[in-house]
Amino acid sequence: MRPSGRSAEQVRPIKITRHYTKHAEGSVLVEFGETKVLCNATVDEGVPRFLKGQGQGWVTAEYGMLPRATNSRTQREAAKGKQTGRTMEIQRLIARSLRAMIDLKLLGEYTITLDCDVIQADGGTRTASITGACVALNDAINQMLANGKIKQNPIKSLVAAVSVGIVEGEALCDLEYIEDSNAETDMNVVMTDDGRMIEVQGTAEGEPFSHDELLKLLELAKNGIATIIDAQKQSLKD
Amino acid sequence: MRPSGRSAEQVRPIKITRHYTKHAEGSVLVEFGETKVLCNATVDEGVPRFLKGQGQGWVTAEYGMLPRATNSRTQREAAKGKQTGRTMEIQRLIARSLRAMIDLKLLGEYTITLDCDVIQADGGTRTASITGACVALNDAINQMLANGKIKQNPIKSLVAAVSVGIVEGEALCDLEYIEDSNAETDMNVVMTDDGRMIEVQGTAEGEPFSHDELLKLLELAKNGIATIIDAQKQSLKD
Amino acid sequence: MRPSGRSAEQVRPIKITRHYTKHAEGSVLVEFGETKVLCNATVDEGVPRFLKGQGQGWVTAEYGMLPRATNSRTQREAAKGKQTGRTMEIQRLIARSLRAMIDLKLLGEYTITLDCDVIQADGGTRTASITGACVALNDAINQMLANGKIKQNPIKSLVAAVSVGIVEGEALCDLEYIEDSNAETDMNVVMTDDGRMIEVQGTAEGEPFSHDELLKLLELAKNGIATIIDAQKQSLKD
Amino acid sequence: MRPSGRSAEQVRPIKITRHYTKHAEGSVLVEFGETKVLCNATVDEGVPRFLKGQGQGWVTAEYGMLPRATNSRTQREAAKGKQTGRTMEIQRLIARSLRAMIDLKLLGEYTITLDCDVIQADGGTRTASITGACVALNDAINQMLANGKIKQNPIKSLVAAVSVGIVEGEALCDLEYIEDSNAETDMNVVMTDDGRMIEVQGTAEGEPFSHDELLKLLELAKNGIATIIDAQKQSLKD
Amino acid sequence: MRPSGRSAEQVRPIKITRHYTKHAEGSVLVEFGETKVLCNATVDEGVPRFLKGQGQGWVTAEYGMLPRATNSRTQREAAKGKQTGRTMEIQRLIARSLRAMIDLKLLGEYTITLDCDVIQADGGTRTASITGACVALNDAINQMLANGKIKQNPIKSLVAAVSVGIVEGEALCDLEYIEDSNAETDMNVVMTDDGRMIEVQGTAEGEPFSHDELLKLLELAKNGIATIIDAQKQSLKD
Amino acid sequence: MRPSGRSAEQVRPIKITRHYTKHAEGSVLVEFGETKVLCNATVDEGVPRFLKGQGQGWVTAEYGMLPRATNSRTQREAAKGKQTGRTMEIQRLIARSLRAMIDLKLLGEYTITLDCDVIQADGGTRTASITGACVALNDAINQMLANGKIKQNPIKSLVAAVSVGIVEGEALCDLEYIEDSNAETDMNVVMTDDGRMIEVQGTAEGEPFSHDELLKLLELAKNGIATIIDAQKQSLKD
Repeated sequence: MRPSGRSAEQVRPIKITRHYTKHAEGSVLVEFGETKVLCNATVDEGVPRFLKGQGQGWVTAEYGMLPRATNSRTQREAAKGKQTGRTMEIQRLIARSLRAMIDLKLLGEYTITLDCDVIQADGGTRTASITGACVALNDAINQMLANGKIKQNPIKSLVAAVSVGIVEGEALCDLEYIEDSNAETDMNVVMTDDGRMIEVQGTAEGEPFSHDELLKLLELAKNGIATIIDAQKQSLKD
Repeated sequence: MRPSGRSAEQVRPIKITRHYTKHAEGSVLVEFGETKVLCNATVDEGVPRFLKGQGQGWVTAEYGMLPRATNSRTQREAAKGKQTGRTMEIQRLIARSLRAMIDLKLLGEYTITLDCDVIQADGGTRTASITGACVALNDAINQMLANGKIKQNPIKSLVAAVSVGIVEGEALCDLEYIEDSNAETDMNVVMTDDGRMIEVQGTAEGEPFSHDELLKLLELAKNGIATIIDAQKQSLKD
Repeated sequence: MRPSGRSAEQVRPIKITRHYTKHAEGSVLVEFGETKVLCNATVDEGVPRFLKGQGQGWVTAEYGMLPRATNSRTQREAAKGKQTGRTMEIQRLIARSLRAMIDLKLLGEYTITLDCDVIQADGGTRTASITGACVALNDAINQMLANGKIKQNPIKSLVAAVSVGIVEGEALCDLEYIEDSNAETDMNVVMTDDGRMIEVQGTAEGEPFSHDELLKLLELAKNGIATIIDAQKQSLKD
Repeated sequence: MRPSGRSAEQVRPIKITRHYTKHAEGSVLVEFGETKVLCNATVDEGVPRFLKGQGQGWVTAEYGMLPRATNSRTQREAAKGKQTGRTMEIQRLIARSLRAMIDLKLLGEYTITLDCDVIQADGGTRTASITGACVALNDAINQMLANGKIKQNPIKSLVAAVSVGIVEGEALCDLEYIEDSNAETDMNVVMTDDGRMIEVQGTAEGEPFSHDELLKLLELAKNGIATIIDAQKQSLKD
Repeated sequence: MRPSGRSAEQVRPIKITRHYTKHAEGSVLVEFGETKVLCNATVDEGVPRFLKGQGQGWVTAEYGMLPRATNSRTQREAAKGKQTGRTMEIQRLIARSLRAMIDLKLLGEYTITLDCDVIQADGGTRTASITGACVALNDAINQMLANGKIKQNPIKSLVAAVSVGIVEGEALCDLEYIEDSNAETDMNVVMTDDGRMIEVQGTAEGEPFSHDELLKLLELAKNGIATIIDAQKQSLKD
Repeated sequence: MRPSGRSAEQVRPIKITRHYTKHAEGSVLVEFGETKVLCNATVDEGVPRFLKGQGQGWVTAEYGMLPRATNSRTQREAAKGKQTGRTMEIQRLIARSLRAMIDLKLLGEYTITLDCDVIQADGGTRTASITGACVALNDAINQMLANGKIKQNPIKSLVAAVSVGIVEGEALCDLEYIEDSNAETDMNVVMTDDGRMIEVQGTAEGEPFSHDELLKLLELAKNGIATIIDAQKQSLKD
C-alpha cells in the first residue's frame, strides 16, 4: 500500500492551471499531488551568440526551488552565489526535453526561456517541470502565431515526464518524496505524445538493477505519461 | 482618476492566504491588487555567530523575485551568481521591520528566517512582503508556543507597510507599478499597530519634496496602514 | 552632555579639502569630526547601456571602507569577493542623492562616478560622503565647463546630508559613532540648498518612533544641513 | 563503415596504465582510442559533515578537462571562476557510479576522491573516466588494506561504462567524437561486472527514439562493457 | 635629465607620517614624491589554521588601490568581485618582506595584518608599501610590548624597498610612473638595514638585461634603500 | 650529498616530448626529474581588446596543477571558484617570459595561449613550465609559418628557466621539492639562449641573502640554463 493509497501504476492527481501569472507569454502552475511548480515561458527576440545568423531559434530553461519549498529550508542559491550541480543538471534536462518538441528552424530567431520554480516540493519536481513547461511553451507559441511573430507552428509534439522507481522491491509510478527517498532505483522518463522517448535517466541508488527491472519501469513510465499527456491535452482545450 | 479607479487615499484590495504551502512554520500568500508575494517563515535552532551565548534570538529575511514576476524577464540572481543591490536593500529593510515586532530575548536562541518571494509584481513588493511576513511570523511564533519551544509570546506588535508617493503633483496611497514608475517622490512607511513608525524611506525621484508634501504622504501612509493592519487582524482570526 | 561636548543641535567641525589627490577631475577630503572620507569624481565619455542614445548623462557612486577605517578590522570586500548589503545600500543612496543635483540632459553623454572611500570612520560616513561628493562633483563639472566639454552648467543645487537620531530619549544632530551605536532611532536626511528634501531614511533601531519625534528630527536635520551647506559654499569660494 | 574502421559493436582499443603518477593512492591513465583521462584516487581521513558520526565512508569525484584537450581551446574553469553545468553533471555521474561499487559501511570513516582529468578528448570522456576511476579506486582500496587502514575489502564489484548511440540510423558502440557529434540518440550506460545496471542515461539529440532502439542500444552497451571489464581485470592482474 | 630634475641615483623626497589614522595599532602614510600609500597594522589574537598550536605568530598583508589613485579610473576590485593577479602578486610580496623582519616565534600566537592602500599612485607603490608597512609594524609591535602582550621584541631588522630600472639605456633609482612605463628593465629590491637582500625581482619589459646591468641596478638599489632606511629611522625617533 | 645523488651544480634529467597531444598547435610534455608539466600552445585569431588595431599580436599563459599532482591533494581551483595568488603569480611570470622571446609586431594579430598544466609536481614547476612552453610556442610558430598565417619568423630567441637556492648554506641548482621546502633562499631565473636575463626572482625564505650569495646563485642558474637550452635545441632537431 502506497502512502497516498495509490496503486503501483497510478500517477498522482495532475492539475494544470494556465494563465497563472499575468506577465509571461505562457504561465502554468502544474501540480502532481503536493508537488507544485510554476512554469513561465518568456519570448525574447534574438538568439544566443553561438546560433547567430543561422536562421533558427532556441529554447532554454532555468530551474529553481524556493528555499522553503522543502521540508527543511534549503539555502537560497542567489545568496550563496551559485547554483548547485543538482539545479544545473535539472535545468539542462528540462531544456533538452523542451527543445525536442520544437522545430527550431520554424521558430525563427527567437529565444524562449522556461522558468520552472518549485513552490512546494514532494518528489518529482523535474518531471512536473517538464510537464508544465510543455503547456506554457504551447501557450507562448500560440501567442506568437496570433501576433504574427511566426507564420507556421513549430510544435512537433507534446512532451511529458514522470519518475518511476523500485521501492522495497516493487516498481512504482510517479514517486512522491517519501517513496523517492527510499527508492533503490530511480528513473526519470520523458516521452512524446506518440510514445517515443526523449530522455531515460535511470540510477541505482542502492542495488544495481536488472534488465527486467528496467523494462518494467519503462512500461510503468509509458502508461503514466499517457495519463499525463491526457491531462495536458484536456488543459489546452479549456 | 487612478488607473484602478481608486481614490488617492485608497489601498488596493488586500488578500492574505495563510497556510499557503505545507512545509513552512508560517506560510502566507499576500496580495495587494496584482502584486503577489509568498512569505514563508522558517524556525531553526541556534543563532548566527555574532549572537552566540547571549541568550537571545534572531529574525532575518531574504527577498527574491521570480524571473518573470515582472513585465519583461529579469535575469535570475542565482544564475548571475549574485544578488543585486536592490535585493539586498529590500531584504535588509524587511528584516529590520520584522525584528522590531519581536522581543528577541523572549524568543530565545532560535533564528526565524522570512523568505519573501515575489510571484507577480505590480508595485509595492517590499511593503507587501513586510505585511505578509508579519502574518507568517505570527503563525510561526504561535506554533512555537503550541510546541512548547517558547513559553512566553515575544510578539510586541503587528507591523505593516505601504508605499505612498507624489504622482503628477498628487499624493497617492499604495502605488501600483504604473504609478510608481511615474512618481516624483516615492516613500515606503512601516508602522506598528499602535501607529508608531519603524521605517520611513522617502526618495525624490525627480524634484525634491517639501516639508508639507512629506507630512501629506505620512498622513496617507498612516491611514493606509491602518486598513492593512485590519486585514492582517481579520486574517489572523480565521 | 554629548561625548564631544556639543549641544544637541550642533554638527561636528566640518573640514572640506579640495584637490586632495591629483588625478581625479574632482577630489575632496571631507571631515565631520573624526570621520574622514575621500571623494573622487571621475568624468568618462559615454553612458551605461540602458541610457545609450537618449542624449543624457549619468551620475553614479561607489562606496568603500578601508579595512582599518573602523575600530576593529573589517574584512576587505575585494578579498571576500563581494560587497556587503550595507555597502550596496550606501552607494545607491549616494548616487541617487547626487543625481538629484544634476540636470542629466544638460550633462550630455558623460558618466561621472563618485568614489567615496572612508579613510577613518566615526559615524555618519554616508552623509559625509554625500556632502563631500557634492563638492567633488562641482569641481568636476567646472572643469568640464572650462574644457568646453559642456556648454551649460547642469548643476541645479548643492546637496548635503546629515544623520540625526534619538539617543537615550534625546534628539541629537550629527551622531558620532558612540552615539549612533546607542541610538533608538537613526535618520539620514539629504537636502538641497533651498531646504527641500531628497532623501529621508528613518529607522527605529529599538523602540518605534512617534510622529512628533520624526518632526523634531527633521527640524534638527534641516538646521544641521544649513550649516553644512555653508561649509560647502565657503570651500567652493576658496 | 565507421571512421576508425571498427564494426558497429566494437569498442576502441582500451589501454589502462596503473601507477601513472607517483603521489596518488591510485593513479590510472585510461585510453579509449584517442580519448585519454588521468584518474587519481586520494584517500583522506574523515567524512563530509552530513555523514559525521554515522560510521561510514564516502566516495566522491571531480572532473575537469585541460583547456586544450579539445579541438578548439575551451576556457579554463578555474579562470572563469565556475564549473559549467556539463562538468557538474559529469562529476555527479562519476561519483554515483563509483559509490555503487563500494560498501560504504566497510570503508569506515574515510573519504576517497576520484579526480578525473581529461588530457585529450575524442568522445566518451565520462565513460572512460568511470572505467579508469574504478581501477584507481581498486588500487587505493588495496593500499588501505595493505596499510591496515581497513580490515575488510569494501569492493562489491567492478564498474565500467560505455557510450552508445544511433548515428545515421545505425546503433553504434563506443562513439568517438565525430560520431557523437552526429548522433541522433546518445546513451551512457554504467554496469557492474555481473551485468546489472548502475546508470542508464539516454538522450534524443534529434528525433525521439523508440523502445526497440533503446533495447538495441542496451544490448550493444552490455557487450561493450563486458570487453571493457575484461581490460580492467587484465590490468589489475599485472 | 629626469622629469623631476633628480639625478640617476636620487630617490624622491620620502615623507613618513605616523599615527595617521586613529584606530589601527600602527598607521603610517608614506609618500615617495607623489606616490602616497596608507599602511595600517592590525593586531589580532590567534593565527591562521595552518599554524594552530605551533606557538608562533603570523604576519600578512593586503594591498589595494583606490579606484582613482591612478590617472584614469581603475575598476573597483570589490565591485568586480575579485582581486587582479597584480594585486595578489603585490600583497604576497609585501607579506613575505615584512615576515622577514620578524621572529615569528617571539611574536607568539598573534596575527598582524598590514593593509596597504594606495591613495595616489605615481610609480613604486609596492616598494612604498613595504617601506611604510615596516614603520607601521614597528609601531604595532611597540604597542604590544607596552601592553604586555609580548615580552620580548620580535623585530630582527628594519626592511625597506625601492624600484630601480633601465630607461632609455640608463639605470635609474626610484622610478616615477612616467619612467616606469618606459623602462626596458624594472627591478624591485627589498633589503634589511644591514644591507642584505630579502627580495630581488627583476623583469625585462623590453630587451633582456645583462649581468652588468643587473649589478648596476643592485648598486643603485642598495644606495637608495640606505637613504630610505634613514628616513624610517628618523621617523621612528620623532 | 643531494637526495638524488646530483652535484650542487647539476640539473635533473630533462626530457622533452613534443606532439604529446593531438589537438594543440604545439604540445610538449616537459620533465625535470619527477616534475612533469604538459604545455599546450593554442593559436587564435585576434588580440585582446587593449591591443585592438595596433597591428601586433599577443602571447599569454595559464597555469594549473592537477589536484593530485602534489603529495597531498590540493583543492581544485575550478571547484573553489577562484585561482590562488600563487597560480596568478606563476602564470603572469610564464607569460612575461614567453613574450620576451617573440617580436609581437611580426606575429601580427594573433593570440597564442600557453596552457601549462602540472601532471606531477616535485619542485620547479614554474621553471619547467617556461622551458616546455618555449618549445610548444616554437612548434606553434612553425606551424603558422608552414600554413602561411605569418610570413616572417617572430622568434627572437629561446628562453629557459631554472630554480636555484641556498639549502643548509649551500647553493644548489634545480631544486627538487624536498630541497625547495628547506631552502633559505629560493631564486627563479629566466634567460635567453645568448645568456641575457629576462626574469630574476630571488626570495629569502629564512635569512636574508648577501650580494655574494646572489652572485653565486646567478652563476649556477646561468650554467644550468645552458644545459636546459641544449636539451630544447636537441628536442627541436628531432
